[in-house]
Order: sequence, then C-alpha cells, then structure tokens
Amino acid sequence: MSAHSGPAGFQAVRETNLGVVLRAVRELAPCSRAAVAAATGLNKSTVSSLVADLIARRLVRETGEGAAERRVGRPGVMLALDDRAIAAVGVEVNVDYLAVAAVDLVERELLRTHVPFDARAAGPDACARRIADTLTTVLDTPELRGRTVIGAGTAVPGLVDAPSGTVIRAPNLGWRDVPLRDRLTALLAEAGAVPMPVLVDNDANLGAVAEYRSGHLRGTPDLVYITGEVGIGAGVLMGGAPVRGATGFAGEIGHIRVVADGPECACGRRGCLEAVAGLGAVLRGAVPDLVPSGPLSGAAIGELVAAAAGRAEADDPVAVAALEDAGTHLGRGAAVLVNIVAPRAVVLGGHFVPLSPWLLPACRAALAEDAFAAESGGCRVEASELGLGAAALGAATALVDALDSGRLPLPAPAPEPART
Amino acid sequence: MSAHSGPAGFQAVRETNLGVVLRAVRELAPCSRAAVAAATGLNKSTVSSLVADLIARRLVRETGEGAAERRVGRPGVMLALDDRAIAAVGVEVNVDYLAVAAVDLVERELLRTHVPFDARAAGPDACARRIADTLTTVLDTPELRGRTVIGAGTAVPGLVDAPSGTVIRAPNLGWRDVPLRDRLTALLAEAGAVPMPVLVDNDANLGAVAEYRSGHLRGTPDLVYITGEVGIGAGVLMGGAPVRGATGFAGEIGHIRVVADGPECACGRRGCLEAVAGLGAVLRGAVPDLVPSGPLSGAAIGELVAAAAGRAEADDPVAVAALEDAGTHLGRGAAVLVNIVAPRAVVLGGHFVPLSPWLLPACRAALAEDAFAAESGGCRVEASELGLGAAALGAATALVDALDSGRLPLPAPAPEPART
Repeated sequence: MSAHSGPAGFQAVRETNLGVVLRAVRELAPCSRAAVAAATGLNKSTVSSLVADLIARRLVRETGEGAAERRVGRPGVMLALDDRAIAAVGVEVNVDYLAVAAVDLVERELLRTHVPFDARAAGPDACARRIADTLTTVLDTPELRGRTVIGAGTAVPGLVDAPSGTVIRAPNLGWRDVPLRDRLTALLAEAGAVPMPVLVDNDANLGAVAEYRSGHLRGTPDLVYITGEVGIGAGVLMGGAPVRGATGFAGEIGHIRVVADGPECACGRRGCLEAVAGLGAVLRGAVPDLVPSGPLSGAAIGELVAAAAGRAEADDPVAVAALEDAGTHLGRGAAVLVNIVAPRAVVLGGHFVPLSPWLLPACRAALAEDAFAAESGGCRVEASELGLGAAALGAATALVDALDSGRLPLPAPAPEPART
Repeated sequence: MSAHSGPAGFQAVRETNLGVVLRAVRELAPCSRAAVAAATGLNKSTVSSLVADLIARRLVRETGEGAAERRVGRPGVMLALDDRAIAAVGVEVNVDYLAVAAVDLVERELLRTHVPFDARAAGPDACARRIADTLTTVLDTPELRGRTVIGAGTAVPGLVDAPSGTVIRAPNLGWRDVPLRDRLTALLAEAGAVPMPVLVDNDANLGAVAEYRSGHLRGTPDLVYITGEVGIGAGVLMGGAPVRGATGFAGEIGHIRVVADGPECACGRRGCLEAVAGLGAVLRGAVPDLVPSGPLSGAAIGELVAAAAGRAEADDPVAVAALEDAGTHLGRGAAVLVNIVAPRAVVLGGHFVPLSPWLLPACRAALAEDAFAAESGGCRVEASELGLGAAALGAATALVDALDSGRLPLPAPAPEPART
C-alpha cells in the first residue's frame, strides 16, 4: 500500500509489470499495445514482451477485426482480457450460512450459491471439511470445468491473520487460532483437487472489496462496508485496498462505544455499537416475542429478519422503533468513520439489507448530525445490492485483484497458447 | 496508495524506477549496483542506466575505497546517497508560532527555527507574506546556499486540499478558501527566488510523516500523530502514507464525541474531544486563574502551557486533575483510532509534549480499557520527541519522500556531474 517501503517491500518488477499491463488492458480494452505503453509509461518493446507472456498464460487475447475495417491505414491489433481460461472461487462462512461465488477474469459471475449452515454448531473442524467439500463440488461443475482456478478465497467473520491464513478469533463462531488456510489446503489435496493458493481474510474486508469491484458503487476506492450479522464489522477500503492496520485489528467498528452506560456487549464492555445495533439487539427489539433467550441460533436468523421486515412493513410500532433506533446508532458509528477515514460511501450489508428501508433514514440523519464536515463529509450511506454472500464474491474478486497487481502466482503459460 | 488504480494512476515508469533505485540506495547504502538490482528486481543494465541518471542529478554518488581494500578480487564500486547537493524546506504555521526546518537528502537537519507569531491576528495575507519572507531569508543562509532546494512544504492546522494547495478551512486561524500554494509561489517569484514546487498540507499529516521518518519511532509505518494545539487533529499514517480519505477530511479526531452532553465545542456540537482535551479546555482547567475569557490568544499559549506544567510538577491538585482528565479523554479518542485503523503507535505532539508526564498515564489506562483488542491492540501511546515544529520537519521530509517515490520533479542533471 505504501509509496515508501523497505527492501522487503520491493516486488519483483516483471511480476509487477505483468500486473500493470493486465490492469491497463482491463481498464482500456479493446486497446492497442501502443495504448498500453502510453498509459503505463513502459516502453513498447517491454509491453510487447509482457503482452506475449500474458497471451501465453491465457490472460490476454488479441481481437479487433472490427477495428481494422473502420480504420484507414495499417490496423492495430487490439487486446482484450481473455475471459475463457481462468476462474477465481470465493467461499464465505457465516454464523448462519455458507456462500460460494466464482468469477472469471472480467469478474463476471460464473456461479453463486447460498446454503443455510449453522457454522457455530458445526465447529471449526467440521466447518473446514464442509468448505473443502463445497469447493471440490464447485470445481467440478460445468461452469468451472476446463478453467484454471487461480485460487480459493475464504471469508470469515473474525480477526484473521491474512498472511498466514489463520483465524485468530471469530467470537460469533466460537473459533480461536484456527489455521484455516493450511487445513483447507490439506483437505483439498486429500480430495485430489489441483493445487491452488488458498487465501483467508475477514468477511468485512472482502465485502468491501466486492462493493468496490462489483457492487452498485463499483469503482469507489474509498468506501466502508459494514457487515449486518450478529457481529458488526467494518471493511475499510482506502485507495481500493483494505486498511488492515499494524496488527490486522482494524475495522472493529462494532466495539466503539456509542451509548454511555449502554447495554452489555459480548466483549464485556458496555454500550458498544454491536450491543445496540448488532442483529441480536435489533431482532430482540423488533420481534421480541419470537426471539428465544440466549445467543441467537444461526438456523433462526433468516426467518427472524424476514419477520422483523414484515412487521415493519405492516407499520408495527415496536418493530419500526427498534429498527430506527438501530439505524440511529449505526449513523453515530458511521460518523466516527467519516471523521477519521472520510470514505465516500458507507454500505450496509448482509442482513441489514432487507431491514434498510427503516435503518437508512435514521442512519443518514444521525450521520449528518454527528459528522464534523458539512453534508456528512460527502459520504453516502446505502444498502448493499450484493445481498448475503457479498464477502464470497469479494473473496473471488480479491484473487483477480491480486493477479492484477502481481501479488498472486500467475497461471503458467498453456502448452498451446490459445489465440484468436 | 492503491495496488489497483485507473489509467490516471499509472506513473511514468522511468520516474518511478528512479525513485525505486533512490529508495533502495537509501535503505542499503553503501551498496553495489548488483545489490540494488537484487533488491529491486530491476535488471542490471537498467539499474546502471538509472544510477548514472541519479549521479548526474547529484542524488547518488560513488564511494567504497574502503570496501576495495578489504575484498579479494575486483572490488565493486559502492553507492551512497549524495547528501551535498539538495535541500528540502518546510514551514509550519500555527496559532502561536511559525517554524521552519530544512533537511538534506539523508534527512539530516540543516536548520530549524521557531518564531512566536500570532497567525490568527495577522490574517491570511500578512501570514503568506511572512512565510514567503521567512523562506527567502532561509534560502540565503549559509546552511542552504549552494544547494538546490527541491521544494518548499507548508503545514497548516486545517483542512487542506493538497492537490491544489488550498486551505479550505482553518478554524483556529480564521481562514477559509485561501489558495496558499499559488500565493506563496507568486510571492517567492516576486522576491526573485529560484522557482520551486510549493506543497501545502495539513499539519497533523505532516507531523505524522515527521514521526515516521525522523522521530524516535522512526520506521513505524502505521502510526497516528495527534496535534496538541487549540484544535486537535490526527495525522493517520498507514503503510507510511497519510490516509486522506475520499474528501481529505480524514483525521478529524477532535470532533468525535467522547462525552455525552459534554461542553460545547467550537464546531457547535457538544462533548467533542477538542472541547474537553484541546489546549483551551486543558489550560482553563489546569490554570483557571491565568486564562482570560474568550478565545486563547496565540501570544499567551506557550507561557500558559509552561505554567500548567510547573503547577503539576509542584503537585497542584487542580492542575494535576485537569491534565489527568484530559489524558483520559485522549485515551478514549485513541481507542477509537485503535478500533478503526489499528496503528502501532499514537504520538502526542505539539504543546502536549511538556504536559505528557500527566497526560500519558491516564491516556494509556483509558486506551487499554476502551480498545477492543487485548493489550491496547498492540498500540503504544507516547509523547513526541520532535517538539514544536514537528510539522515543519515533516513538510521538509515529505518532499524527500516525494522524490524517493517519483512524485516530485527530480532536480535536473548538473552541467558537470560531481563524482567522488
């Protein structure tokens, strides 16, 4: 992320430049090699060599018959991304579901699935096996068969050490120090899957990546995605990259205090945002008669959210007041984000989406009131249009992003390069 | 900052690579061309060409006689930064002083001055003239004469649109929409100074840069610098670069609410951090009999801070309680920073430094209590060792950083390149 970094931060320049050219073709396609050279500042012979490499790896292809017909003089051969050869797969584990998404090189969705699954009841071992099973099944579907899968990304609602792929703590799943990447890699090998990089990251970070690359605010590099689950987390994207902080603990918006001497939070403090606007608090407030005491069971959440939305829709005053109250607290939290990191947008995701007609007006009003800069600091608050499983999509697109920026091993050149 | 950016984000690769090599020499010196090639991934002939260019611009020089004596076989010629040719100058305007700092290419301080100056009383026009006068005087000192000045950086306590160099709003100076960069450029031209880039940025951002590059926590890329002035601002550095947010409004830590229904803030809200821990509140609490009513005059601040520290030193219970109270509030603010951006360190700067023996213990305790992650999220809170004028130093070093990363025009090759 830094313009200034020590020797360890220097990347192999050819890998980086392959990514630079891939990104330029993504932005400019259809485009000539000369246009890529102009946009990147690389010289033309370097661009030609890098493009040949990308074509051999089936990431870029030549195109442009149409352009040839319309132009006077020697037509330039045009370049485009090759969307036929690779796929990236993402899985999201959450308290109440498992979601899978796969995209191709142009980030078109190849498939998306959503399965109710009580991950907390299953525990980390059974959950890892279930993820690996799901992945091997997906790899064998017609949508992916024949494609090179560049990696499997996994989104987890908790604190993740991304470099090692270890889930340090996922309180709402009851996990601690689970080496998920290594476990999934071993399980996939046992199942006979082709070896591939496995990445693990926090679900809020990956939700933010999904909004940036695929959501209705696509192309907004400075945004925050707020997960609407039992826990509340924030994925803070600045300049298109997640802010992780020195320790990876960034984005813990759920545990800033928004109510002095408020209700007790699962973390042991009082008045945390999660304690007053997390799904547990929201549902207990909106449909108190339907919520059993004790921690919310993953299996029940979807139905309870639907019930809360249904009652609010029918103008039930208890439901409406509870949702507006949660919206106000979310707005106070959003204001803190705006004051500190000044995003262009805050996106409410997950189960907040069906509740957003009642959450959003109160949230926006509280943000406008609390933000220091005029007009909410130029920040919009909106509901995600990616639905549940945004983080699975983000896990897949993050792999494509890593490819673009030279941070992922590029697929090997094909024995017989496909050319148009 | 982003690994992913549009065509406008592509930098000219040669400029970037000159910066890459300059940075490698900075990190590795004394080092051979081969070591630079190994560290950067650039091939050896490219490195040789870039090094020749940097030598012609007097940014790098050859050295290494000593190395030759100690080695068997053909000795490699070693490279080091050339610290004899350039200088970068920074100016800080604050409510009660004007500070100047200049550094060379290895960021050694060439000079530092600190002048009491009531910038609010002077107004933006007189203040710009005073800055320009100060700069022209400094350019003619023995320390800088003969050096190529690569630019003049200016730190302002307010919201700055860095790309245009306009101060949008500096409430504690009473400024609004002051095109400071253009005005300074014109005034320097009038005064007959050699043309140079003028940069303007927020003082907290530049204070953070100074801590990162020159402070006792030097090399900590994820840190927050908190200005200790009438206003409280935060410079948030992630990966060594300031987080500006989409709008440049990032870092407004002074206006997060830390006390429900607290005292009124200059911004019109209640209970903001600045209203309970800004210098105005601190001094009114610690030395109530010495503080006149109305806004604090710039001229009086230094003496009042010294008086507060003196009374606390003498165990005056009113002063001690007021400082500890402010420290607790600063700790609550630091906890919000830790929860959201997870820095490795929070540094209290400016006038907080002499008060830090009483601020810090309370601040650290409140941070430990409020931070979600264990052990304050691995974040230290410390007092700056750079004193008043840290932002001036940061303004100078930010220019060197811009040179390192190819964001500043490199000085032209000298007619007769200096070689050792």
